[in-house]
Amino acid sequence: MEERTRIKSRTAKKNFKVRFLPFDICIDVPPGTNILDAARKANLFLKTTCGGKGTCGDCTVQILSGTYQSQPSAALSEKLLNQGYALACLTEINDNLTLQLPQFQEISIKSVSDSKFFDKQKNNISGLYEIDPLVKKIDLELPSPTLEENYSDLKRLQREVQKKLEIKNFNCEYSVLKTLAKVIREKGGKITVVLFKSGQTWTIIDVEPSTGEKNIYGVACDIGTTTVAVHLIDIKNGKILGTASSYNQQLKCGEDIISRINYAQKPGRLQELHDLIIMTINYLIKKAAESLQISSADIYYASVSGNTTMIHLFLNLEPRYIREEPYVPTLNKVPFLLSRNLGLKMNHEGKVHCAPAVGSYVGSDITAGLLCTPINRDSEKISLFIDIGTNGELVVGNKDWLMTCACSAGPAFEGSGLKCGLPATEGAIEQLELKDKGELQYRVIGGSKPKGLCGSGLIDLLAGLFIHGYIDRQGKFEAKKANTRIIENESGRGFIIEKGKNCYWERDLVITENDISNLIRTKGAVFSACSLLLKNVGLPFDRIDSFYIAGGFGQHLNIENAIRIGLLPDLERSKFHYIGNSSLLGAYLILLSDKNRELVNEIAKKMTYIELNTEPSYMSEYTGALFLPHTEMELFPSVKKIINC
Amino acid sequence: MEERTRIKSRTAKKNFKVRFLPFDICIDVPPGTNILDAARKANLFLKTTCGGKGTCGDCTVQILSGTYQSQPSAALSEKLLNQGYALACLTEINDNLTLQLPQFQEISIKSVSDSKFFDKQKNNISGLYEIDPLVKKIDLELPSPTLEENYSDLKRLQREVQKKLEIKNFNCEYSVLKTLAKVIREKGGKITVVLFKSGQTWTIIDVEPSTGEKNIYGVACDIGTTTVAVHLIDIKNGKILGTASSYNQQLKCGEDIISRINYAQKPGRLQELHDLIIMTINYLIKKAAESLQISSADIYYASVSGNTTMIHLFLNLEPRYIREEPYVPTLNKVPFLLSRNLGLKMNHEGKVHCAPAVGSYVGSDITAGLLCTPINRDSEKISLFIDIGTNGELVVGNKDWLMTCACSAGPAFEGSGLKCGLPATEGAIEQLELKDKGELQYRVIGGSKPKGLCGSGLIDLLAGLFIHGYIDRQGKFEAKKANTRIIENESGRGFIIEKGKNCYWERDLVITENDISNLIRTKGAVFSACSLLLKNVGLPFDRIDSFYIAGGFGQHLNIENAIRIGLLPDLERSKFHYIGNSSLLGAYLILLSDKNRELVNEIAKKMTYIELNTEPSYMSEYTGALFLPHTEMELFPSVKKIINC
Repeated sequence: MEERTRIKSRTAKKNFKVRFLPFDICIDVPPGTNILDAARKANLFLKTTCGGKGTCGDCTVQILSGTYQSQPSAALSEKLLNQGYALACLTEINDNLTLQLPQFQEISIKSVSDSKFFDKQKNNISGLYEIDPLVKKIDLELPSPTLEENYSDLKRLQREVQKKLEIKNFNCEYSVLKTLAKVIREKGGKITVVLFKSGQTWTIIDVEPSTGEKNIYGVACDIGTTTVAVHLIDIKNGKILGTASSYNQQLKCGEDIISRINYAQKPGRLQELHDLIIMTINYLIKKAAESLQISSADIYYASVSGNTTMIHLFLNLEPRYIREEPYVPTLNKVPFLLSRNLGLKMNHEGKVHCAPAVGSYVGSDITAGLLCTPINRDSEKISLFIDIGTNGELVVGNKDWLMTCACSAGPAFEGSGLKCGLPATEGAIEQLELKDKGELQYRVIGGSKPKGLCGSGLIDLLAGLFIHGYIDRQGKFEAKKANTRIIENESGRGFIIEKGKNCYWERDLVITENDISNLIRTKGAVFSACSLLLKNVGLPFDRIDSFYIAGGFGQHLNIENAIRIGLLPDLERSKFHYIGNSSLLGAYLILLSDKNRELVNEIAKKMTYIELNTEPSYMSEYTGALFLPHTEMELFPSVKKIINC
Repeated sequence: MEERTRIKSRTAKKNFKVRFLPFDICIDVPPGTNILDAARKANLFLKTTCGGKGTCGDCTVQILSGTYQSQPSAALSEKLLNQGYALACLTEINDNLTLQLPQFQEISIKSVSDSKFFDKQKNNISGLYEIDPLVKKIDLELPSPTLEENYSDLKRLQREVQKKLEIKNFNCEYSVLKTLAKVIREKGGKITVVLFKSGQTWTIIDVEPSTGEKNIYGVACDIGTTTVAVHLIDIKNGKILGTASSYNQQLKCGEDIISRINYAQKPGRLQELHDLIIMTINYLIKKAAESLQISSADIYYASVSGNTTMIHLFLNLEPRYIREEPYVPTLNKVPFLLSRNLGLKMNHEGKVHCAPAVGSYVGSDITAGLLCTPINRDSEKISLFIDIGTNGELVVGNKDWLMTCACSAGPAFEGSGLKCGLPATEGAIEQLELKDKGELQYRVIGGSKPKGLCGSGLIDLLAGLFIHGYIDRQGKFEAKKANTRIIENESGRGFIIEKGKNCYWERDLVITENDISNLIRTKGAVFSACSLLLKNVGLPFDRIDSFYIAGGFGQHLNIENAIRIGLLPDLERSKFHYIGNSSLLGAYLILLSDKNRELVNEIAKKMTYIELNTEPSYMSEYTGALFLPHTEMELFPSVKKIINC
């Protein structure tokens, strides 16, 4: 008995420390644990397609310090092994290790300032309001009190504030009061004051002895089911100082919102999902602020958007009733919250604003996105807005009315759930041209050897494969189109995009029939939703004057190819506008001006939600769209013409 | 070396636990520590006049469990020793002890409902507003959502609230949102909601599944420099459910506000003072709620008043600049605060309101006090309000104008700083009549044997000693008036009020010349301030129509005797109204109706402060008042008449 106890305690002593970068999370694990299991224990997402069998290579990590031994695998070349890369699933931990998770590199997003609606001079979307944020930082000099005028510190502060700003109602946070007497006297009455406006009331949320500098920063954040993106913003002038984007760390708990909601149903799991998204955002804020020497205490305001489930998890709210009929969220319009209550690393009195949602399946990412388009500012023309993320949401209308619906697109265009998929991050093919004879040209984000394809690259590839006859209209490889690029192995047929020797991971970059079928389901879901929505409002496609396409495709989206695969309808090309991550852009606009915040509330109020799942024609519309470009070729005359050539 | 270490560690192990009731604070002390030192270490106040020499008997405690040995002292009879009483300063701790500090018994205060202005039917001060508190608890039944009307939980809640209450702006606390989905569904939409009004906005601060009961309680609290008092109130109907009052635990850090401010100047000391007052209030809330089975989670609102220094310490704000010229407080008007930020044991979202102060030396105890009098509601008559606490504050005026001043009275009338003094607590003589031949009749609070005298008893005694010639006009014992009651020992002359055998502590109850001189300084400070204030506004005493006297004298104050000693001016007796603890009464009124809160703000705005210390005639006024009743006997014709008899 004693012997057993002693052995147990000796074993317990031998635990090793594993440090995961870039999150800098350390955990202790017993010897022999593999890195994939350790990452799960550390609550970190590590992509794996083969389920830890050592065949897909997705869980490749870079080991920065510590000795280790890794089983060999065809999925990782000897060269990379020698460079310190290893498959997490095949590497046992028998030393203290520091390792880098490679998946959290910055995701390339279309910049706000690249938007065609963006007025670079004014740092704003043209037609929208000037910079007028809810948070202001001002310098004041309080007059010294005298026996005749011995007003309280707070009263003197209030009087000087009211001289500078037109303020009706005035308030002050307790945390400010606690140090007010000392702060005022430290530099003879010279102070820097931060005020936050809520309704008609301005509240003092921070006071410090004047430093001459007025650092006041904000964060705009789009919480996607798959990827999360932030802008770090100088609130004084609206300048975007830094941008960062990465996978949503909740991915380890499920790929789509339904699986996340299910995951949250066991005790402690909602908190876990909440902690994961907060960790992701804190990491992105830190990353966006990197090299700028910005203190988190100078970040006073976060403007957040995301789908309704993501916002519920962000706020630590029970998401269960979102997916149970009649699909009721806890709330659509979120009051201002304190960043410290959520765990965000900002100023102690930092405020968090979430854009309003319309309902369980049209969230604040959509209302914020609409803010970036002229849809809600034009009574004449009719526009269609499509946001393609893990879920797809569509809005049609104009200044007077807005109808909206949602569909489960799946994360294929975000690079998730595909063997060759990547978010629009370094190493992702973002543009691609496949020629008739199998020649292939592509452009890789960051210019390195390719690691995979992001949404825009996948659309280009799928269009090329289809147009040049490599695949049929159902997405199956054409037997007659024999080509050295087409391979067949135990997991079915595939198309070699690039040979291993030219790829970053030194293994062939392949798109499989499964991947193609995944992409077709996604584009089919989007197109059929689009089609049904327009039928519901009694408008044919050609009555739409403008199409705004939002999504995480990266910098570019080839509209022509998107039409060829039947993702977008076959209309005049000039009607289409790819606007990138409009949810993030909208969050940015809300942060900059309180009038935009009022406007987004008006937009949300105006929107009417249509439930497509209960439409009788839903299934027939969807199945019709599961072809390239569609069962009814007449809907795509320009594509028909090319194919018939 | 090893031997020494071993001894040390053995010694360290022998520490004893001392548990102090009623606060239930436990500390560890090394053996041999005396109880007085242990109480200090536990941050508890234990009165001692002799400084721990074992002669005054003030530090008598009752030991409930544990063995101990106490040195004998003339200050504690053997009978009491045998009953488990011991002098803290003479008792070493050599066992684990549980003991009761006797000083924290309930202090008797004049009940709100005893006020002549109180309308018992309406549970309100007549002429003031009806019950309309800022916190409301209502029952709602939310309709079940349907696919057609699937409003969010928050929206459905808002709609039902707006059906019940006229609400313009609506908000909801994050803590409520976090459980909203579950709480709503637990009893099929039946919920109980607590709302708090701030400005024009009603914020939901609590929601629970409907229980059929609507427990909603509030606390009114007067923080005095010496004593603290609370009422526990049923907010539904304004009923006072419990009352408790005790010493302010800060007393161990100094008797008056100046010494407290000085005490706060060392690091950590402000926090200590803050913790002590919070501990005192939490204890009083618990005591007031005793036997009522009231959960602290059902206490949603605290209405607090106190002098400006006490409010600063309560809020953990630097008090230093209150006493440094030009006497600037951090603030006079305090925003609503969260009870949890202060450490008060109430509902997690409980709100704290502090009545507004006028300046550093006229605090919210005075503005709240004025709310209880008709002063600010009458344009014709002129009234004078005097609050006699450790500091004295005076207000003169009517509905159109109010002038105010302050004086350092000292805590003599609160029973502090006198050998025979007690607050108006059990065992205190509250009424006393001394007859010419030395006969003495008195009434003791609680009916036990006397322990000491509270303010009203001291005034009666002083008047009796003076009128019957035991003391001269300077408060010195008359040598010619030989009497068995007059004694002389090393600490000077004294007058035996009651023989030890008839006293609770079995030692003679004596008033010394020092005590008398202390009382005369206090009454002199009040009277001279009164006199100077009226000179400042150019009004003679007889132009005042009503005198309102507030203070912790207990249930009664003999106006005749107060005039005889020169505390109050010699005017028609019907002009005087003793109103007890008007600060507490005002806090209660503010809690009950938001209109009273607005009214007290108007009162504070109307008040003009006069600094008496800078008046050239201040010293001569004061010294003139250091006689019984005054140097100028002409000011007190009725007294002169009696004495000349």
